[in-house]
Amino acid sequence: MTDDLRINGERLISDLRDLAEIGGTPDGGVNRPALSDADLAARDWFAQRATEAGLEVRRDGAGNISAVLPAADPAARSVLFGSHLDTVPFGGRYDGALGVVAALEVLRTVREAGLRLPVHLEAVSFTDEEGTWLSLFGSRAAAGELTAEELAQPRGMAAEFNRRLEAAGLTREGILAARRDPAAVKAWVEVHIEQGTRLEDSGTDIGVVTGIVGIASYWLTFVGRADHAGTTPMNRRLDALLGVAEFLRQARELIANRFPEGVMNCGIVEIAPGAFNIVPARARLALEFRHSDPHRFEAMREALLSLALHVVEIEGLGLEVEQVGVHPPVMLHRDVLTAIEAACDALGLSSTRLPSYAGHDTQAMAAIAPAGMFFVPSIGGASHSAREATSDEDCVNAGNVLLHAVLRLASQP
Amino acid sequence: MTDDLRINGERLISDLRDLAEIGGTPDGGVNRPALSDADLAARDWFAQRATEAGLEVRRDGAGNISAVLPAADPAARSVLFGSHLDTVPFGGRYDGALGVVAALEVLRTVREAGLRLPVHLEAVSFTDEEGTWLSLFGSRAAAGELTAEELAQPRGMAAEFNRRLEAAGLTREGILAARRDPAAVKAWVEVHIEQGTRLEDSGTDIGVVTGIVGIASYWLTFVGRADHAGTTPMNRRLDALLGVAEFLRQARELIANRFPEGVMNCGIVEIAPGAFNIVPARARLALEFRHSDPHRFEAMREALLSLALHVVEIEGLGLEVEQVGVHPPVMLHRDVLTAIEAACDALGLSSTRLPSYAGHDTQAMAAIAPAGMFFVPSIGGASHSAREATSDEDCVNAGNVLLHAVLRLASQP
Repeated sequence: MTDDLRINGERLISDLRDLAEIGGTPDGGVNRPALSDADLAARDWFAQRATEAGLEVRRDGAGNISAVLPAADPAARSVLFGSHLDTVPFGGRYDGALGVVAALEVLRTVREAGLRLPVHLEAVSFTDEEGTWLSLFGSRAAAGELTAEELAQPRGMAAEFNRRLEAAGLTREGILAARRDPAAVKAWVEVHIEQGTRLEDSGTDIGVVTGIVGIASYWLTFVGRADHAGTTPMNRRLDALLGVAEFLRQARELIANRFPEGVMNCGIVEIAPGAFNIVPARARLALEFRHSDPHRFEAMREALLSLALHVVEIEGLGLEVEQVGVHPPVMLHRDVLTAIEAACDALGLSSTRLPSYAGHDTQAMAAIAPAGMFFVPSIGGASHSAREATSDEDCVNAGNVLLHAVLRLASQP
Repeated sequence: MTDDLRINGERLISDLRDLAEIGGTPDGGVNRPALSDADLAARDWFAQRATEAGLEVRRDGAGNISAVLPAADPAARSVLFGSHLDTVPFGGRYDGALGVVAALEVLRTVREAGLRLPVHLEAVSFTDEEGTWLSLFGSRAAAGELTAEELAQPRGMAAEFNRRLEAAGLTREGILAARRDPAAVKAWVEVHIEQGTRLEDSGTDIGVVTGIVGIASYWLTFVGRADHAGTTPMNRRLDALLGVAEFLRQARELIANRFPEGVMNCGIVEIAPGAFNIVPARARLALEFRHSDPHRFEAMREALLSLALHVVEIEGLGLEVEQVGVHPPVMLHRDVLTAIEAACDALGLSSTRLPSYAGHDTQAMAAIAPAGMFFVPSIGGASHSAREATSDEDCVNAGNVLLHAVLRLASQP
């Protein structure tokens, strides 16, 4: 009966364009880091649009902001959906914004259609998904996973963090009290741009996310010996940087051969003492790797650390391993995946299942509710850049798939 | 007739011990950077010892200090020999110091023997051989190779440099006027610790230096593309650091196979943007290499730069090459080599010819006079460290070989 319902595509595209002007940069990008004046203005824009649409607006203690279409029964559970309004510094106009604008448009569409649902519908924008201050700040606060210790150690300067919290009207007590009652959340759905080219390459409309990759990060310090780079014969040296070079080369082959669905990056190298004429005594390498399958993720961890040990043994070096963070893969909920795929089928859109290689609010929400998410194509895969782009047609698809997935999840109380 | 003459070994060892207390550190090392208070105190100690021995003391505008045993004819040429009193920060007690103490001892021995020579003998300590402020500061000033431009850009802070020059009683005008008249210099000889293990490994007493290696240094910047380290498939990345890794691995093989007498070092890597989760867009590598043969040095330069180009082509990267410095090899003078070898023969000491892989004042002096140098063994090859050590016997050998090499070079006017 509701299979013919569609969102208002022009209204969604218009909203996206208006929103991109808040913090917009001359090159077409958006600079709207969490709790910046631009970010606060974007929240007010969202609240105003929701109010204009006859929706209820709620703000929680972590600065998460919701537009709500209540069910008749105040004790009903809620289906939540949305994303985030903040960007990385000098980011793009679709990352996060599309998910929030699509969620708002879904609520307007359902309200205008006069549908009576057995659950509350809530379109959410989470605070600081990009981690300007804290990784997945708002969604982890909603999931009850943010700690006072983390709040005491923001990524930026603590004094500036306090100023921005005050500007946003937030307190530490309020943030820690923002936890949602899991019993009251029926499901969570997020739509996001892919930030990659798998959909574009395969000509697929929708990517149904099976899980969020696990991410592990380590400092690997290869330890050799500082020597005079002139007088020490080559075969007498213990060059820490050569250990790094061998590790990088063999790790590349390891990932290609044994973990083709995983990814790895070494984004920082620090050498000590660090001079043209001194053999490197220490080379500190930032290692990060990701995999969506929990067993393969663990196998990858073991294989990479074993490789590092193998390399230092061959090269006569030492190795120091410092774990920075290990976040295991999050598998998303079958019921939500099924609802998204059924929506695609009903709309005649092609879909494929794939993991997400980036972190998203969905991984936090998965801790308290059946959670799922889907991607629409990113043109050229650009992300965290003014070059970020998604076609209007795909943005409208995002809204319609979200609409029908939500309606399926909202069909029972 | 003078073949039986020997230096006073006990006096030399005693001098070395006294000198090591000036700037001495608790671990047995010496911290006496050029123009530091300790360095100035060491010069005064040298001047006082020379005066006590009845020698004339001279200081030039660059702070080089000499003990002189004049010939009867004031217009005679000079045979110069010596080394330097400064150390690297927290260095050892033999690097430079042995050469100065041995030179002083040679003068005392010649004076006490009452020898009448047709040339002046001059034991020199050059300012800042280690390049705390400027590479081979004093010897290049004496050779007339130091420029006003270099003086304006010392390695340390310019304000501190000015304060230290003032403390040492030096002026820029004086430094630039310190050039020696090449016509007045008959020869230069230096004795130095090897700072390597070739003599120790082969059980040889004396290393006769054939030349000072050429040193070339470059910044090689491998240029890739910054990408999201999660969402960008491995085979779509242009990882600048992988270019560095391949270069390092292949360069090591290249040197081992084609340039076994050369050495190479990459002592610094700088990555941009430099984050765990961003694929390296730029990796800036400090490349330095050395060879004693001018033709092989040039071949090494071409081979290493070609290799870098080859690697970036295979990896799909770009390459930026910035030449930091190229100092071709300096061949030492046959007459001085012969005098050193004859001295070894007369003393019954074994000797071998070898290149110096480190820079020394001798390379500057080679520009204005027939120049040569020789090494005595370093225990374990340690250098620029408190672990620096040479046996008393080898220190005494240093003095006796220097004595007889100087006497041979001083036998004609």
